Amino acid sequence: MDRQELRARTVAANVALERAGLIVLSWGNASLVDREAGLFAIKPSGVPYAELVPSDIVLLDLEGGGVLEGTRRPSSDTPTHLALYRRYGSLGGIVHTHSPEATAWAQARRPIPCLGTTHADVFDGPVPLTRALTDDEIERDYECETGTVIIERLDGDGLDPLHVPGALVAGHGPFTWGRTVEDAVSTAIALEAIAGMARRTLALSPAADSLEPALREKHFGRKHGPRAYYGQPGSGPSSLPNGGRQA
Amino acid sequence: MDRQELRARTVAANVALERAGLIVLSWGNASLVDREAGLFAIKPSGVPYAELVPSDIVLLDLEGGGVLEGTRRPSSDTPTHLALYRRYGSLGGIVHTHSPEATAWAQARRPIPCLGTTHADVFDGPVPLTRALTDDEIERDYECETGTVIIERLDGDGLDPLHVPGALVAGHGPFTWGRTVEDAVSTAIALEAIAGMARRTLALSPAADSLEPALREKHFGRKHGPRAYYGQPGSGPSSLPNGGRQA
Amino acid sequence: MDRQELRARTVAANVALERAGLIVLSWGNASLVDREAGLFAIKPSGVPYAELVPSDIVLLDLEGGGVLEGTRRPSSDTPTHLALYRRYGSLGGIVHTHSPEATAWAQARRPIPCLGTTHADVFDGPVPLTRALTDDEIERDYECETGTVIIERLDGDGLDPLHVPGALVAGHGPFTWGRTVEDAVSTAIALEAIAGMARRTLALSPAADSLEPALREKHFGRKHGPRAYYGQPGSGPSSLPNGGRQA
Amino acid sequence: MDRQELRARTVAANVALERAGLIVLSWGNASLVDREAGLFAIKPSGVPYAELVPSDIVLLDLEGGGVLEGTRRPSSDTPTHLALYRRYGSLGGIVHTHSPEATAWAQARRPIPCLGTTHADVFDGPVPLTRALTDDEIERDYECETGTVIIERLDGDGLDPLHVPGALVAGHGPFTWGRTVEDAVSTAIALEAIAGMARRTLALSPAADSLEPALREKHFGRKHGPRAYYGQPGSGPSSLPNGGRQA
Repeated sequence: MDRQELRARTVAANVALERAGLIVLSWGNASLVDREAGLFAIKPSGVPYAELVPSDIVLLDLEGGGVLEGTRRPSSDTPTHLALYRRYGSLGGIVHTHSPEATAWAQARRPIPCLGTTHADVFDGPVPLTRALTDDEIERDYECETGTVIIERLDGDGLDPLHVPGALVAGHGPFTWGRTVEDAVSTAIALEAIAGMARRTLALSPAADSLEPALREKHFGRKHGPRAYYGQPGSGPSSLPNGGRQA
Repeated sequence: MDRQELRARTVAANVALERAGLIVLSWGNASLVDREAGLFAIKPSGVPYAELVPSDIVLLDLEGGGVLEGTRRPSSDTPTHLALYRRYGSLGGIVHTHSPEATAWAQARRPIPCLGTTHADVFDGPVPLTRALTDDEIERDYECETGTVIIERLDGDGLDPLHVPGALVAGHGPFTWGRTVEDAVSTAIALEAIAGMARRTLALSPAADSLEPALREKHFGRKHGPRAYYGQPGSGPSSLPNGGRQA
Repeated sequence: MDRQELRARTVAANVALERAGLIVLSWGNASLVDREAGLFAIKPSGVPYAELVPSDIVLLDLEGGGVLEGTRRPSSDTPTHLALYRRYGSLGGIVHTHSPEATAWAQARRPIPCLGTTHADVFDGPVPLTRALTDDEIERDYECETGTVIIERLDGDGLDPLHVPGALVAGHGPFTWGRTVEDAVSTAIALEAIAGMARRTLALSPAADSLEPALREKHFGRKHGPRAYYGQPGSGPSSLPNGGRQA
Repeated sequence: MDRQELRARTVAANVALERAGLIVLSWGNASLVDREAGLFAIKPSGVPYAELVPSDIVLLDLEGGGVLEGTRRPSSDTPTHLALYRRYGSLGGIVHTHSPEATAWAQARRPIPCLGTTHADVFDGPVPLTRALTDDEIERDYECETGTVIIERLDGDGLDPLHVPGALVAGHGPFTWGRTVEDAVSTAIALEAIAGMARRTLALSPAADSLEPALREKHFGRKHGPRAYYGQPGSGPSSLPNGGRQA
C-alpha cells in the first residue's frame, strides 16, 4: 500500500471514531498495519481529532517499534498496538477508545455476556476482560504489558481474535481489532452499542441468561466464515461505517 | 403503485430509521408491499444507509419470495417480512431494527407493560414478546421461523396486528408494522421511546402498575378506529416523521 | 398583540420544543394567550413540527373555547390548556410534552423531589403529581378533566402556579407554564433536565434528601421575586432558549 | 494579555461548554484571570450562549471584585470564582456547569471514586465533595461561601488544585479549574464523562473497587508533571477541545 493512502486511511478511521461519539476529548486511537512493508501507522498522541491531517500520522517499524516516518510523537498506547500486531498475524487494524458504555464494563471488571443477537453478530462469545496488571508490570513497561494481558486472556481461553474481535482491559477500557482498520472501527461502534444494551438488559432482568448457543452460532455464522450469507457477495465489510452517527 | 415510487418510498423509509437514531451500523430494514402487483420491496443486505439508492432496492414475489427485480441480495431478514405479509393482509409495511432500548427488553425477555398514555397512543396493550426458537427451528429455516413465532404470539393471544403494531423477538429485537411503511417507521420510533420510558419508570417505581384500562382505551381510541379525533381529518398518519430526530 | 405575531410566536415556541429534543414524533403542544383580545393560540393536532407554519395555528375563544380563526383542528389537548388559562390569570403560555425523563416520573406516579439547586432555580418545591382520573372523568370530558386534576393539585396544596410552573399528570406526562409561552418552553426544557438528574441521583443515593430549605429558597429567590439578582436588569427571561439543544 | 483577546477567549470558552452539551438553558459560566493586570473576565449573568459577544464579557478587579469594564451584570457566581482565584495563585481559569451526570453526584452527595484510567488521566484521586453550607452561610454571602467550602475541602484534605482540578458542591453541581480556562473547559467535559461512567460502573458492580494506586499514579503521571509523556512536546493542553461534541 502507498504510504499516502495508508496515512489517509488512518486519519479517516480516527475521525470516524470521533463522529460515532466514541471519543472523549482526544482520548482514543486507531492504527493500521502494512505487513508487506513491515510497518504500521498510528495517530499521534494527544492531537485533537478535528485537526488531524495525514502528515500527523506516525509510521513505525513492525519489528522494533521505532519511528520510520513522521515528526509527531506517536500515541502513548503504541506499544499495546505493536504487541497485538506481532502476536496475531491476522490483524490489519486496531482501535482503542474510552467509549462510555464499554468503559463502564471494564471499570466494573465484568466481561460482557452475550445476551442477544446484536452481540452474536459481532462476537462469538462474551467480550473478554483482562486480569489487572501487577504493580511491577505497570512500572516496567505499562503500555506493552497492556498488550500482554490481552494476549494472555485470548490465548489462555483459546480464542481466535477474528472471532472475538475485542477485549476490555480491566479498569481501563476497550480495544477492538479486525482484518482491516475499518472493521476495527465498526466493531468499536458495535461494542459500544452492545455494552449499553447489556447494561439496560441487566437493569430489567438482573438474572438474564446468555443467548442460546444455537442462536449465537447462527448469527455469528450468518456474517462470518464459510456459511455467511449476510451482506453483498464480493463486498467485504471493510468500508467505514458512513457518517458514524451512533445509535 | 409505480415500481419507481415503490423503490423511492422504501429508500426513504430506511433512511428515516437511520436519521431517527434507531440504527447501529447497517442493522435494520424496512419493507413495503404492493398487494395488487403481488410483490414487496426491501432493503438489500448489509448496505450502508447513506449509500442506499432506489436501484439497490430488491423487489420480491409475494407468493414464493423469489427476486423479481434488482441485482442486490435482499435483507437476510426477508423471510420474516414475507411470513408476516402472507399471514396478515392488513399490513402494508414492516420495519426491523436493533434500537437500543427496545432490544434491551427483547434481551431481558420481558414484554413491555403499558405504563402510560405514550404507550397507549400506539399499542392497545403490552408490546408482546415471542417465545424462544427451538434449536431445530433455528437450524431449519431461521428467518422464516422468526416470522412464525411472531404470528404464534399474536394469534395465540388473539391480537389484531393493527392494534398491536409490533413485537419483540426474544433475544433479538423489535419488529414493527402498519398499514403503510411510513406508519411502521413511526411505530419503530415510538416503540424505542416507549421502551426507554418504561425502563426508567421501573427504575423509579419497580412495582409500577399498568395504566388504568379506561385511560388506555381512551388514548388508543383517540388516535385509532371509528371514534378517533386526533390529527387532521382526511390526513392519515402516513407521512414519514420529519427529519426523524429522536426524543 | 397582532394576530400575525401571535401565530409566529406560537410556531416558534412549538419548534423550540422539538429542537430541544423534547418531542417524540408530533406529540406535544405549546399555546399562548392574549388576554386583552380574549383568545389563545395553539398548535394544530398531529401536524409534524417541521411542517408547522403560522397559518396552521388555531385561534380560540378564551371564554367558550370555540375556534375563532384557522382551518386546522386544534390540539386534542386544547381543553386542558383552556381550563388552566381560565383558572389562572397569571399564565401567558402553556406547554405539554411527552419528554422521556419527565414522563417516566409521571408513569412512576412520583412527584419529583427537589434534590438540588438546578431544581430550585425553577420550582419552589417538588414538581407535583396529579391524582389519577376516575373512569367517569375519562369518559365524560377527558382533556378538560386533565386540567381539573392539575388545578385540584395546585389549589389543594396552596401552590402559586408561577412558583410551581409545572406538574406531572399521573400516567401521562408533564405540563409546564409561565408568564409567557417562552418561559413555559424554558421550563419544559429545565423540567426534563431536572427529571433526569433526579433519576440519576436516586440511582446513586436511593435515600437522597431534599435540598435544605434555606438553599432552596436562596436559589428560587435569586431568580424570582423582589430580591432576584440573576440575569440582566430590565431583560425578562422571556426569549426562547436559543437553538434549544438539550444538555 | 490584551483585553480584547481576554474577552474573546472568555466567549470561546463559554461557547465550548454549550457545544459540549454541558449546559442547560443559560446555566453555567467560565472565567479567565489575568494576574499581571490584576483582573478577571467572566460571562454575564443569564445571557444565552448563542448571543454571547466579546463586549458582553465583564472585567472585574482581582482584589475587591468590583467591575472594571463592561455594562453587563456579571455571573451571579462571580464571588465563587473570585474566592478561588484569590486563594490559589496557580489557577488561570474556572468553569461552573450544571452538567447532568456530575450534578447527579453532587445531588447524591457522594464524591466520585476513581474507578478507572479515564478518571486517573484527569484527577489524581476522587472528585471531592464539599460539605453542605449552613443556613447562616447561605443567608450571609452565599456565592462567596460556596468558594469557601470548596477551599475548605481542598485545603482540609491537603489537595493541590492542579492535581484535583475540580470539585462537587453538595446539592449544587461541579466546578472545574486549571492553569488556563481552556484546561478548565476540557476538565469540565472530562468530569461529565467520568461521572457518567462511574454511575454506570456502580450499576453493573455496586461494590466496584477504586483503581489500584499504581495504575492511578501511572495514568495521572503520564499526562501531568515531570515524567509526562502524553501529547506533543512543547504543546500544552491549552487549546479548546474542538467542536466540543461530547462522548
